[in-house]
Amino acid sequence: MDYDKQKVASLPTIRRLPAYLTVLRQIDTADKETVSSSYIADKLKLEPIQVRKDIAVTGCEGRTKVGYLVTDLIDAIERYLGWDSNKQAVLVGVGHLGSALLGYPGFMKYGLQIVAAFDASPKVVGSIVHDQKVLPMDDMPETVQQLDIIMGVLTVPAEFAQSVADKLISSGISAIWNFSPVTLEVPEGVVVQNEDLSSGLAVLSVRSSRTRKW
Amino acid sequence: MDYDKQKVASLPTIRRLPAYLTVLRQIDTADKETVSSSYIADKLKLEPIQVRKDIAVTGCEGRTKVGYLVTDLIDAIERYLGWDSNKQAVLVGVGHLGSALLGYPGFMKYGLQIVAAFDASPKVVGSIVHDQKVLPMDDMPETVQQLDIIMGVLTVPAEFAQSVADKLISSGISAIWNFSPVTLEVPEGVVVQNEDLSSGLAVLSVRSSRTRKW
Repeated sequence: MDYDKQKVASLPTIRRLPAYLTVLRQIDTADKETVSSSYIADKLKLEPIQVRKDIAVTGCEGRTKVGYLVTDLIDAIERYLGWDSNKQAVLVGVGHLGSALLGYPGFMKYGLQIVAAFDASPKVVGSIVHDQKVLPMDDMPETVQQLDIIMGVLTVPAEFAQSVADKLISSGISAIWNFSPVTLEVPEGVVVQNEDLSSGLAVLSVRSSRTRKW
Repeated sequence: MDYDKQKVASLPTIRRLPAYLTVLRQIDTADKETVSSSYIADKLKLEPIQVRKDIAVTGCEGRTKVGYLVTDLIDAIERYLGWDSNKQAVLVGVGHLGSALLGYPGFMKYGLQIVAAFDASPKVVGSIVHDQKVLPMDDMPETVQQLDIIMGVLTVPAEFAQSVADKLISSGISAIWNFSPVTLEVPEGVVVQNEDLSSGLAVLSVRSSRTRKW
């Protein structure tokens, strides 16, 4: 595998790569050492050419009539996504969603570790949520700076999202995973990924209304 | 507004429409009755032409130099997404994520009402989660049929996702909002929307690694 062959991928490609990992991890490599683009395409209802193009950005090369080595391909995708090493993040807003994310075992698979959780409410601060002691917001800047953390998970109510984002950024956070339904204004160099459940529901609503009326 | 002008939209368009709603709902219409495509584009870091094309699928028409009436545009998008009427759904799997979704106040804004929650674990069945009494899985088929529900929210662990999906479908569910990291096999006519947090994290990982190493 030649990592110099890694390319800059389009957003749709990047969004699909984790699904490839899910399919690959479901393969028992004791039974099946190699996998074809058609196999992955079939599982995810994509075109094989699309799968081959997406995989090409990771630098992993398949062989004609053999396909990709499953373990090689998993390594290549994880490396491309930066999921082969541990990344630390802080979470702000320990409500329903924040608590669910703190307890989500899947993040470790993506190399993401939430090392500290903060909340503004005195009712929540000090409580233990999924083995994390919730800390007061005032402690956030010091934690971020001492541990040199660059990623923040934002799960606060909409009306507080911008001010908390500002505070995260001034503390040194440069990547925000935003679960609040708000468009954040951030300075250049700060990356925001909005996780808006309503997008998925929109797609489901429209697609299912074509097959049958609600 | 001419609803006959509604068109079939691409998936990226459908995914963007809820973000337009978020921007529009933040506008105080007592102050500002109309909105331009440039205003929306600026808030969401899109191109105005993209915004105009997306809005065109809803059948809502703007006027030159005036823009769209905010309330008209909200109505048109909600109607296009089918969010102007209530849709009932059942949820299966009352773990961390399932509980968070049951308590998510935002769903009502999208016209989605989770009317019953089911779980297989005797430890969870009978408990009250966000005002919903958790019911045993055996009650699911009857509930779905009696209330003529077509949508199921799937928040079970990966290893149970396919068998629970099969059970939902045989009970009459034809639209599944799947939060399990599994590719479901479903018969034709059943619509699945996968909500995979790892896609968003992938985008954030790759984009932020371009600006700075983790």
